[in-house]
Amino acid sequence: MGAALASAAASRGHEVVVVSGPVQVQYPDSVTVIPVVTTDEMLAAACEQFESCDGAIGAAAPCDYQPRQMKTEKISKTGDTLKLELIETADVIATLGQRKRKGQWVVGFALETEDRRFRSIVKLEQKHCDLMVSNGPEAIDSDDNHVELLVGEGEVLASLQGTKEQVAIDLLAAIENRLIEKHLIG
Amino acid sequence: MGAALASAAASRGHEVVVVSGPVQVQYPDSVTVIPVVTTDEMLAAACEQFESCDGAIGAAAPCDYQPRQMKTEKISKTGDTLKLELIETADVIATLGQRKRKGQWVVGFALETEDRRFRSIVKLEQKHCDLMVSNGPEAIDSDDNHVELLVGEGEVLASLQGTKEQVAIDLLAAIENRLIEKHLIG
Repeated sequence: MGAALASAAASRGHEVVVVSGPVQVQYPDSVTVIPVVTTDEMLAAACEQFESCDGAIGAAAPCDYQPRQMKTEKISKTGDTLKLELIETADVIATLGQRKRKGQWVVGFALETEDRRFRSIVKLEQKHCDLMVSNGPEAIDSDDNHVELLVGEGEVLASLQGTKEQVAIDLLAAIENRLIEKHLIG
Repeated sequence: MGAALASAAASRGHEVVVVSGPVQVQYPDSVTVIPVVTTDEMLAAACEQFESCDGAIGAAAPCDYQPRQMKTEKISKTGDTLKLELIETADVIATLGQRKRKGQWVVGFALETEDRRFRSIVKLEQKHCDLMVSNGPEAIDSDDNHVELLVGEGEVLASLQGTKEQVAIDLLAAIENRLIEKHLIG
């Protein structure tokens, strides 16, 4: 979805910066790609770039957790179980949502397996997003997607389905209509 | 290394079956590939194929651990740490080493970051291997490899270095010389 959104935004004349984890995806030549590996790196790059952007779309799926402790040497098997303690990583989109200045907008993505619409609305509010794109695990490694575009109070602005390219074009049109034109007028 | 060994063995006239995890590697058309995902699936396929094989080379790096419990739904963040309990998976090469009949041979790979030669020799004995190929983490995602070929009592049979293709050819020659010709004569 990230590559499809970058492509759709660039073809509509927007200047696009992609902060991308190590994915096997081809981004269009016309966009600037900032490669990162960890969620902390993504947070730092996203915060830095957001300073000079009109808005942010959070289509990446950064790791929610990271090990508390890292080993530099291989751990030998002992015959016993291994308890891996994981701590939560920073929430990139929630951080941008908190930092946005007047006129800036943030669109989040929520991937849920249960109570999708409800949980997506909760995330929209908790993360101070202007729009939340709700989708499911069927989207992973698929050419197609089926999303609901949610605004505050649980209103469903649109239900979009098709190839990720088509859904990206429709999402960009909705973002322009709802967030960008409003800001240009206001 | 697995693809390079399959290719080297096939080009030397051996009938090759590759039990392969989900890797981004191209195997030669002349070999039979049995795709697996989990370590348990690799164990089952390797045991079944080993019945009708003269020997086995264990170049794969199957997961050493698996979660004790699997969730079918997405786990929501709670703000707290997450403790992941991991249990050891079955050891594929050790199982083949235990099962081998008279005339069959097993070559293992050991990837170690510390005390490489000592730990590789321990693995050779514990896993009932006829030869152990000892290498290090530099081999991962590299075109080249540097390995030591170890036999019982800690004897270093050969030290091989070069592209993985060249190391594979040299390993196959050593395996033929040490294990296959011996069995044909014996």
